[in-house]
Amino acid sequence: MRRVLSRRDFSKLALTSAVVPPVLLGNIQPEGTAGGTVDATTSRPDKANDEAANWQPVLPGIWKASFGKPEKFTPVRLRFREPAHEALKRLPELSKCPISPTGIRAQQTERGYLLKIDLAAHELVYGLGLQLLSFIQRGTKKTLRTNADPRADSGDSHAPVPFYVTTGGYGVLIDSARYSRFYLGRMTREDAQRQREAPPASARPVAIARELLPQGYFDQRFDEPSEVVVETPRAAGVDVYVFGGPTMREAVQRYNLFSGGGCLPPRWGLGFWYRCDAGYDQQQVLDLAAEFRRSGIPLDVIGLEPHWQSQTYSCSFLWNRTFPDPAGMLRTLASQGFHLNLWEHAFTHPSSPIHTALGPYSGNFEVWGGLTPDFLSAEARKIFADFHEKEHVALGVTGYKLDECDNSDFTGGWSFPECTQFPSGVDGEQMHSLFGLAYQETIESIFRRRNLRTYQQVRCSNALAAPFPFVLYSDLYDHRQYIRGLVNCGFSGLLWGPEVREAENEEDLIRRLQLVCLSPLAMVDAWFLKNPPWKQVKPEANNAGQFAPGWQELETKCRKVIGLRMRLIPYLYSAFVRYHEEGVPPFRALVMDYSADPRVWHVEDQFMVGDSLMVAPVTAGVSKRDLYLPKGDWIDFWTGKSYPGEHRVTMDVPLTVIPIFVKTGTLLPRAEPATHAGDPATRRLTVKVYGDGSLPFTLYEDDDFTTDALHGNYNRVSLTWDNTGKIGHVERTGQGDYPKYQITAWEQV
Amino acid sequence: MRRVLSRRDFSKLALTSAVVPPVLLGNIQPEGTAGGTVDATTSRPDKANDEAANWQPVLPGIWKASFGKPEKFTPVRLRFREPAHEALKRLPELSKCPISPTGIRAQQTERGYLLKIDLAAHELVYGLGLQLLSFIQRGTKKTLRTNADPRADSGDSHAPVPFYVTTGGYGVLIDSARYSRFYLGRMTREDAQRQREAPPASARPVAIARELLPQGYFDQRFDEPSEVVVETPRAAGVDVYVFGGPTMREAVQRYNLFSGGGCLPPRWGLGFWYRCDAGYDQQQVLDLAAEFRRSGIPLDVIGLEPHWQSQTYSCSFLWNRTFPDPAGMLRTLASQGFHLNLWEHAFTHPSSPIHTALGPYSGNFEVWGGLTPDFLSAEARKIFADFHEKEHVALGVTGYKLDECDNSDFTGGWSFPECTQFPSGVDGEQMHSLFGLAYQETIESIFRRRNLRTYQQVRCSNALAAPFPFVLYSDLYDHRQYIRGLVNCGFSGLLWGPEVREAENEEDLIRRLQLVCLSPLAMVDAWFLKNPPWKQVKPEANNAGQFAPGWQELETKCRKVIGLRMRLIPYLYSAFVRYHEEGVPPFRALVMDYSADPRVWHVEDQFMVGDSLMVAPVTAGVSKRDLYLPKGDWIDFWTGKSYPGEHRVTMDVPLTVIPIFVKTGTLLPRAEPATHAGDPATRRLTVKVYGDGSLPFTLYEDDDFTTDALHGNYNRVSLTWDNTGKIGHVERTGQGDYPKYQITAWEQV
Repeated sequence: MRRVLSRRDFSKLALTSAVVPPVLLGNIQPEGTAGGTVDATTSRPDKANDEAANWQPVLPGIWKASFGKPEKFTPVRLRFREPAHEALKRLPELSKCPISPTGIRAQQTERGYLLKIDLAAHELVYGLGLQLLSFIQRGTKKTLRTNADPRADSGDSHAPVPFYVTTGGYGVLIDSARYSRFYLGRMTREDAQRQREAPPASARPVAIARELLPQGYFDQRFDEPSEVVVETPRAAGVDVYVFGGPTMREAVQRYNLFSGGGCLPPRWGLGFWYRCDAGYDQQQVLDLAAEFRRSGIPLDVIGLEPHWQSQTYSCSFLWNRTFPDPAGMLRTLASQGFHLNLWEHAFTHPSSPIHTALGPYSGNFEVWGGLTPDFLSAEARKIFADFHEKEHVALGVTGYKLDECDNSDFTGGWSFPECTQFPSGVDGEQMHSLFGLAYQETIESIFRRRNLRTYQQVRCSNALAAPFPFVLYSDLYDHRQYIRGLVNCGFSGLLWGPEVREAENEEDLIRRLQLVCLSPLAMVDAWFLKNPPWKQVKPEANNAGQFAPGWQELETKCRKVIGLRMRLIPYLYSAFVRYHEEGVPPFRALVMDYSADPRVWHVEDQFMVGDSLMVAPVTAGVSKRDLYLPKGDWIDFWTGKSYPGEHRVTMDVPLTVIPIFVKTGTLLPRAEPATHAGDPATRRLTVKVYGDGSLPFTLYEDDDFTTDALHGNYNRVSLTWDNTGKIGHVERTGQGDYPKYQITAWEQV
Repeated sequence: MRRVLSRRDFSKLALTSAVVPPVLLGNIQPEGTAGGTVDATTSRPDKANDEAANWQPVLPGIWKASFGKPEKFTPVRLRFREPAHEALKRLPELSKCPISPTGIRAQQTERGYLLKIDLAAHELVYGLGLQLLSFIQRGTKKTLRTNADPRADSGDSHAPVPFYVTTGGYGVLIDSARYSRFYLGRMTREDAQRQREAPPASARPVAIARELLPQGYFDQRFDEPSEVVVETPRAAGVDVYVFGGPTMREAVQRYNLFSGGGCLPPRWGLGFWYRCDAGYDQQQVLDLAAEFRRSGIPLDVIGLEPHWQSQTYSCSFLWNRTFPDPAGMLRTLASQGFHLNLWEHAFTHPSSPIHTALGPYSGNFEVWGGLTPDFLSAEARKIFADFHEKEHVALGVTGYKLDECDNSDFTGGWSFPECTQFPSGVDGEQMHSLFGLAYQETIESIFRRRNLRTYQQVRCSNALAAPFPFVLYSDLYDHRQYIRGLVNCGFSGLLWGPEVREAENEEDLIRRLQLVCLSPLAMVDAWFLKNPPWKQVKPEANNAGQFAPGWQELETKCRKVIGLRMRLIPYLYSAFVRYHEEGVPPFRALVMDYSADPRVWHVEDQFMVGDSLMVAPVTAGVSKRDLYLPKGDWIDFWTGKSYPGEHRVTMDVPLTVIPIFVKTGTLLPRAEPATHAGDPATRRLTVKVYGDGSLPFTLYEDDDFTTDALHGNYNRVSLTWDNTGKIGHVERTGQGDYPKYQITAWEQV
């Protein structure tokens, strides 16, 4: 048992004869001014040592201010992708930066660079990358440090991103590769004094939020105007970018488009993935593939874990002798519709043929006896990419799992120290922030130059990552954290795959599988299991070939869960096109779509998939699920029952059910069951009509392999429903010679 | 279930056709040269950008080298106590700094100041302050950041200390108040290359350690020479102090004497402590005191939790109206032999009478709406101390519990930000390192000027803390971590009290109580319980006045455990005198006394109490205890059975038994049962004679209240045993008019 009461609760107990300072209720934005200037009600005189912002419009709805002398190595200054200029023009026009010139105050100190950015009373903050341990960021302190083991809510993350969005309807990017510290809702005594002296604004009661948010938010002076204080260590200046809305979702869209637009995976990437036992040899991989097809469990991608290489920790990138004919294996797999993904990390072992060449382009500390390539140098990227292309991609490998690129303090202190020096000029701290991005770029460049689309895994990322077709994963494993990660990633241009690995029991396996099949990447990672987990969840028995009694029943359940994933591929693909073209995250928190409703502000365990589906995942041990339905009517995906929005619902959740609600009006295409995304069945669709079917839907046809679709080369298939005539219409635009969708039926729900 | 195998285990599986780099076995120190220069076998040419050490002897066996331009605000430069010059002269003479001028390399970088300090193969590192999550520090990475919630083994600690000791028999202090990063056993490629080029030294196999240490140590290139890499952020230079041995314990002694010598608590501080329900009013406190005396459970110190104050979080330091006559209460308590300890933190609420005066001497961020006094300024210390003296100490309060002075990232981000500016010139980062020390000094100065000894609690400390009569505690609560904390603190001049708070059940309560009663401060913290936990461990029932059936039996058991503490006070007091006079930690790891035996290198769950007792605590749920007995014969405290040293023992541990072994030859004084340390019974002693009784023992008599004893003013009572005549001898030196020890019996065990 941990302590029963927080000692800080004392401040609220009645016993004290407390002298409570007057609660300040000023500076609340009137409703409807979201996206307006934050400091509308306060006149902030510039201070002698504060630098005011000179906001320069840089792209539609995006402003930049440079303070001091910004550093050379930052995510934006090193950007690998151009902004999506045209797409940005299609967003609502904004005339004015949402933060006024005095709404941000900058100051160089002996420690680095300090920013203070206004935060209104009741304004909540989200984002900062893959935060597994908290959702609302106001009231917290976060150091954005790349770390594989975020065991505490300190900001440590596989993918910290110095970008936040607020319920005020704008986003802020602090363009730095440093471990910046964010104090979200703190003020100096001087600033607090200035607030107190300012005329109070009219208070809008936030009774609903007060009722729903954990009490902690109110401890944190949530009712008062405050600041986001950001300290960027060592820097003598920093660029700040502000992304206007007017809503939070549009701010995120602008950020993603500024990054270059969201990635668009090939359909096979949206199929099912399975990482097989690390000890498998070539024949065992082929046998596994055959077994999947025999059992009818869908599978698109087989992932190999470390032992495909001759040497790991650090890596040789050479095929192990247990894979005597990788080219032949890849041909066989391809002919059966499989893709192959290879595990690796970048630390290069002396036995690797590229070790010598990489030497001059590596950091000055070894990791596991290997070199750390300086991926910020074009030379290192070329040496690394060329070798990978020749050895793997040319043979048919379609992606990698880029492991261990995220540093660690907690598991043996591996990875390069922060004091490492790299030939490009960055130090280890900066490199930890940039390593994942540059590694993704290095690997993706291979596919780009071969005109191939890809979808891969990576354990580290940072700002401007949206265009990279990589999905984050973790070696942590808490199911609730995995749900939160999925919800949080949408704020920061990241994709998160809550991979299924160990399972406590059959229930846990199913619950985790249900979530992963409604995530950016649907994968079971069975690297420690000789047989699929549905044959036996207990590792020892599994590896001894002892299958659970009646395992076929569990397999059937899993096949069904995975089957749903396959049937949703056309829907998911359209959501990703929207990510690519408009920057709308395919998976996102409710607050991004419904930020005006304070009842969704704290909802960290439900999320939107595309524009029409709302998912409320369930963890093992739970038999009733309490969830909130936002504005509009919603229809239970499983029962067809309709529910009014702006209500809480408590539902029974038998093991077969992960709550999915469909927005009324939706036209939802569902494919026929298929074994893999290349199966023609995935293009034969039934359109489910929900409610009046008034929300048109667009499908996209393309060649699915080349990068053509990334340039907008596809046919659009528009679905509309005539609710009077009860008839559906299909309209195809574009003449591309691509595999065609076939609408085989329309079904009213 | 977390992952079943570490992925890093792959590097050791047989499947790979690995090209393994030659294991380097050079640079091992020949036996018997502990304390010699670390780099004896390697000639290290200075590099152009490396600064070599110019070791200056500063005190006997202590050397200093200044690199670059050290900062103004560091533990040594701000030291509050003089070194114990005379005591240092009594330690073995050393002619040469254990680290040669080229055994440490320093470099200024753009990030701060970088040190690389040689580490021999198989040389293990300990220390770095109150580390709750690891023991051997080689192979880890630690950022020495003050933090209340060390949830991961990253260096976060209530009391990080930039001082380490090694099995090489020396200690190193990096004198900085920055969050320095220690990479313990990492090298640059360049340094590694230099090592490879050096002629290999003869290898001493460390077969025993290899067998006993967790495999992880060998993953970390434990067999190779390496370096401790220390990065001190922002600094342009740093002072390094090296403390010679020749053994590890003597290195620690020198460090403690350099700090000013260990503290010497008054006897009442070594008695039993009880922090009562936070809601108690004056009468309830008096009732509780009476109840303790009635029930015969020993008690010396009553601790009040926040509600004694009119306002907390932040604090007014004013008595609450529920304490209408604090002076009267204190008189009554004193007359019954009780001491009163007051909870507080330093953050000063606007309702406090000192708020205005402190304003100019405070940091520029508020904490819980209160000021953070700049305790590095004499003015703030004076304002704070004067008020405390007048309001509390003058009334009879004998100590405080200095809470929340340790920062937090994880529980709401309270405390002042690292970017805080203080009038003295330090920033928030430095202040977090120094705050605990300066706060202790502020409070202790009150007692010093009143010529009173004291013993108190504090939640934050750092380097050179040994002379402060404060014991650390934590709001974390893992029992194994608490044991590790106790063992680790001895390396760094700290005292740790593993307070008993919640208990899962009766067994847990007893097990925790057994540990705390053999620790620097024996306390139950029942701030959330209306009644003592032995009446009911379940908080709800306890607070509802529902006592557990048969609670009297549990109370009896607890009385017995606490009774042992009381009987050991004379023994413990002598151990503290040795801490004060010679710097020998009263509670310490086995490796400090037996560092030549590799079988104790990893022992983190046994510890020495004084020179004669070795304790192996037991946690709930354990019924057999495996432990190691170092060199020499040992006698079971409970059964009198003798065991040979250098053996492992597995023993049954019924709930009444915490394994205690007595070194053979020991003369162990045991007092008569007493209700408090002022009870004359604590001076009536039976001397237990273990084995041949050949180890003399010295008792100390002093006035127990004034600071006289701190200056060596006491009578020494020497106990010796004539084993032939089977007769004990008592010899008193000194004529002080102090309460006298009476030896009532000698008993051979």
